[in-house]
Amino acid sequence: MVTPPNLDSQSAVPLYRQLHSHFERLIQSGQLARGERLPATRELAGMLGLNRTTVSAAYELLESEGLIAGHVGRGSFVIGGPAPATGGISWESLLDRFVGPEAAPLSLPGKNGISFAASRPSEQLFPLDALRASCEEVMAQPDFASILQLGASSGYEPLRRYLLERARSQDLARPGDDLIVTSGCQQALDLIARVLLGPRDKVLLEDPVYPGLKNLFAVHGAELLGVPVTAEGIDVEQLERILAGERPRLLVATSNFQNPTGATLPLAARQALLRAARRSGVVVVENDLYGELRYRGDPLPGLKQLDESGDVVLLRSFSKITFPGLRVGWVIAPKPLVACLAQAKQLSDLHTDQFSQAVLLRFAESGRLEEHRQRMLHNGSERLAAVLAACERYLPPEARFTRPQGGMNLWVRLPEPLDAGELLARALREQVAYLPGRYFAVSRPEPGSLRLSFAGLTPEEIRRGLSILGGIFGEELERVRANRAVEPAPALV
Amino acid sequence: MVTPPNLDSQSAVPLYRQLHSHFERLIQSGQLARGERLPATRELAGMLGLNRTTVSAAYELLESEGLIAGHVGRGSFVIGGPAPATGGISWESLLDRFVGPEAAPLSLPGKNGISFAASRPSEQLFPLDALRASCEEVMAQPDFASILQLGASSGYEPLRRYLLERARSQDLARPGDDLIVTSGCQQALDLIARVLLGPRDKVLLEDPVYPGLKNLFAVHGAELLGVPVTAEGIDVEQLERILAGERPRLLVATSNFQNPTGATLPLAARQALLRAARRSGVVVVENDLYGELRYRGDPLPGLKQLDESGDVVLLRSFSKITFPGLRVGWVIAPKPLVACLAQAKQLSDLHTDQFSQAVLLRFAESGRLEEHRQRMLHNGSERLAAVLAACERYLPPEARFTRPQGGMNLWVRLPEPLDAGELLARALREQVAYLPGRYFAVSRPEPGSLRLSFAGLTPEEIRRGLSILGGIFGEELERVRANRAVEPAPALV
Repeated sequence: MVTPPNLDSQSAVPLYRQLHSHFERLIQSGQLARGERLPATRELAGMLGLNRTTVSAAYELLESEGLIAGHVGRGSFVIGGPAPATGGISWESLLDRFVGPEAAPLSLPGKNGISFAASRPSEQLFPLDALRASCEEVMAQPDFASILQLGASSGYEPLRRYLLERARSQDLARPGDDLIVTSGCQQALDLIARVLLGPRDKVLLEDPVYPGLKNLFAVHGAELLGVPVTAEGIDVEQLERILAGERPRLLVATSNFQNPTGATLPLAARQALLRAARRSGVVVVENDLYGELRYRGDPLPGLKQLDESGDVVLLRSFSKITFPGLRVGWVIAPKPLVACLAQAKQLSDLHTDQFSQAVLLRFAESGRLEEHRQRMLHNGSERLAAVLAACERYLPPEARFTRPQGGMNLWVRLPEPLDAGELLARALREQVAYLPGRYFAVSRPEPGSLRLSFAGLTPEEIRRGLSILGGIFGEELERVRANRAVEPAPALV
Repeated sequence: MVTPPNLDSQSAVPLYRQLHSHFERLIQSGQLARGERLPATRELAGMLGLNRTTVSAAYELLESEGLIAGHVGRGSFVIGGPAPATGGISWESLLDRFVGPEAAPLSLPGKNGISFAASRPSEQLFPLDALRASCEEVMAQPDFASILQLGASSGYEPLRRYLLERARSQDLARPGDDLIVTSGCQQALDLIARVLLGPRDKVLLEDPVYPGLKNLFAVHGAELLGVPVTAEGIDVEQLERILAGERPRLLVATSNFQNPTGATLPLAARQALLRAARRSGVVVVENDLYGELRYRGDPLPGLKQLDESGDVVLLRSFSKITFPGLRVGWVIAPKPLVACLAQAKQLSDLHTDQFSQAVLLRFAESGRLEEHRQRMLHNGSERLAAVLAACERYLPPEARFTRPQGGMNLWVRLPEPLDAGELLARALREQVAYLPGRYFAVSRPEPGSLRLSFAGLTPEEIRRGLSILGGIFGEELERVRANRAVEPAPALV
């Protein structure tokens, strides 16, 4: 990100002019180079506490001077500034056909902010001593040198064996299955897309679903079909209808604590989903990142366990329970698919970092993982209770929110006509962040919705954050209603 | 890999029948599942000390029974055996359109074997204590918890800054450049392909070039054009001709100690290459993995340093000098490209493992990296001298080989009609491995060539291995010549 401008609201120079000069300097000096993206007007306005029209006016002026250009859906890009030394490659036109994911909104400015925006565990809960001990043990192992040597694309063999045996004992792997270690679940999804998808293949996704998943399949050129997610998980009746009409190749479904809704699929829906998938021949990917973080209620058998065909592709990961900075996840799937995933993995990055694989193996084998998971369950349970109570207390009574039994996220629907995307600017000014619904929409935008990721915050932060959000939402609702009330009644004719 | 069969050459049952029964059992029991690949006939023959026709006869029998099928260029696959429990997805047909890389040949069976097959440093030279110290220091850092938290797609910021500042001071990064950390150079190439290549775009590669690079671009659907590499590196005259006729989008070139030939591009050729690239508008990727491992001669300025346009994309990595099992490389390139690479990286795997990034930063900052590099230079120099002397001494006098000044590889051309691929079987029986030329061919197969990767072996192992190879090649040459000598002279008509 660029450094924020120093704006002076007392100055005789209008704010949009000051903002324009700021960007002009950055562009002319090359600090903002050709092809770089400017912040979205909405988010910059929120960040600087400006009116959005002020930002738009500054951008329009830059555009009229040929310094930036606006691309629909991609924001504004630098196109002017110092020419490359000798007029070499035109990167902007070369890169034009690469359509990356939509940029995430600006993160919180201050250190004391409260961010509900990231679905990840709290750093304060990381068991650092247990991890240090696991590292020490790996560094003392006789195979330490070979851990540091080039490894196998399918994963560090002792970890692979450990995970596979554990999965077998839990009925999560059949005799026809194999396991490949990936650099987190994001890579697992990417390898699956590489191996199974051709251009314009159709992929069924939960709607809403988290941006990393949706954007990945979009960039692979797939046609995305959204299946609505209710408080009870993916809507199986709608799923059946879509499966009958379209011929999708892949269905990515979350059994437990879906991201963003927090919804868990009931047993009967799991069985119905598998029956529908079998009839249509679609490949089912069970994305079960949060399954081991159940704070309430009884666990349900997963799709992989219920599936009689043996064809379900199961994704799991260490990173939601332990340390997201160590990128280790895995896929359990029929052997022919795993063999192809390993080939794709070899071409992608040879193999996953072996030191982290070995450290996480020690962390798991030593019982430290399970000990930590118990602590995460205890903390998660408190945090979940706190977020539910705070939503109840602070959100406008007309707001609806899900009541997850585990995981890290819940989903709020604000009463109409509130727009969670527009209100984010105000929340950011009061040092609170969340992710508005539009980042999660596959085909049904919900402007009134937002995700609250509560796992990274203490109960106290959760309460404080929600009292601020509740204040903003409630105020806006009152303002809108007051305006409506004074609107002149239409003439009766 | 499957367990090798227990063959009995004294049995009344012919060997091909025994081999057939072995595979039949594996397939019928599901141990070799549908879609799995059988070893290539040539390599299995080499591994078991059988005639290749024996293996082919066994495979033909399996094929006639509908248990396996042969795909041209992809080897033989299992198609029979136990049906999935309830007739679910037909993985074989689903996976058919994914064309992965050609499988590497079998690795050495015994522990006492000598493998010239892998271009990687020796485990015996890993500075384990220095790495342990770096780990301890990272684990004691105040930001340790945040290293274990989810990070940025562009890399661990302190490492990114360190590498960028160092690159700037060496003129390897311009003001318009930025740097992204990748999971090794393989991922750097993959991200570049994702961002810059469309289907059927043309890519210029050195010919021969290492399989990981060639296979990657092939799988991305690019059309590969090979530019011959001589002992003086890529042939710039031919390059100019191809650039003029075709409109390739990318050119991947190695300035120092090319893999597999070990060739270094002379200064004048570097300049000519840049001029030709500028004229054509092709994007130049400088793959400089080995540049810091020069054992002889004076260093030359790299393409990135010589380039006046500022457009060269430079790839570097820690993994050839230090620990290949820690997957950390980086790309230095114009900012707009790096911004797109970071987006592609986010979708691929979010970010590179942060613990390894932090450990390698400590390893570098503390001076341990440079200390270790000096040791690698000393050892590499001895190993290079040993491999050159041993080639001179043991290879048939008609063999030609390159004389690298650094890196890990040299390239041998055996006299005709020797076939390095066929002779590998015999070498493997005598516990010596290498990679035959066909794995490296882009468009000009060289059956008589092979790569010797010498960096992972001691001078003593190098001598022993080459005396064995020299024996095999010399014997075969004699045998061929003896056969020729007794061939009846054609009648003069």
